[in-house]
Amino acid sequence: MTGYTATVTVRLKAGVLDPEAETTKRALQRLDFDVEKVRRSDRFQVEFEADSPTDAEERATEMTERLLANPTIHDFDVEVDQQ
Amino acid sequence: MTGYTATVTVRLKAGVLDPEAETTKRALQRLDFDVEKVRRSDRFQVEFEADSPTDAEERATEMTERLLANPTIHDFDVEVDQQ
Repeated sequence: MTGYTATVTVRLKAGVLDPEAETTKRALQRLDFDVEKVRRSDRFQVEFEADSPTDAEERATEMTERLLANPTIHDFDVEVDQQ
Repeated sequence: MTGYTATVTVRLKAGVLDPEAETTKRALQRLDFDVEKVRRSDRFQVEFEADSPTDAEERATEMTERLLANPTIHDFDVEVDQQ
């Protein structure tokens, strides 16, 4: 078993309303920053042990599908690095 | 003026308690994933116009210091790409 760090980025699918990003955009505009668009995503770094990079990526994807992301509204990508 | 996208990653400084990451770790463990550590960060992608890459990076850093991050508890990094 080797230690791996999975970096999981979870973002809302295109077309899903993101009131938090919208609020952030308006707050930046109130501070006189002329921004056109704000998108927000969550990034998780998860450390765990696995037998191989393939195994690590499969497990990180399963963690994401079961807990970190909601497949109805989120897209995600998973990157795995050996520690 | 050219369009730029700034990618700002905001994370808690080392030593600052992160109850959300701790809760995520325990939830993964309850689902039988043997994870050692979870860290969470926020990623913002902000689109705006600027005169040069240097100008874009300075403005994105100012946005982060004034709104997106709290310098007392957060570290951040800013990456700027031309659109």
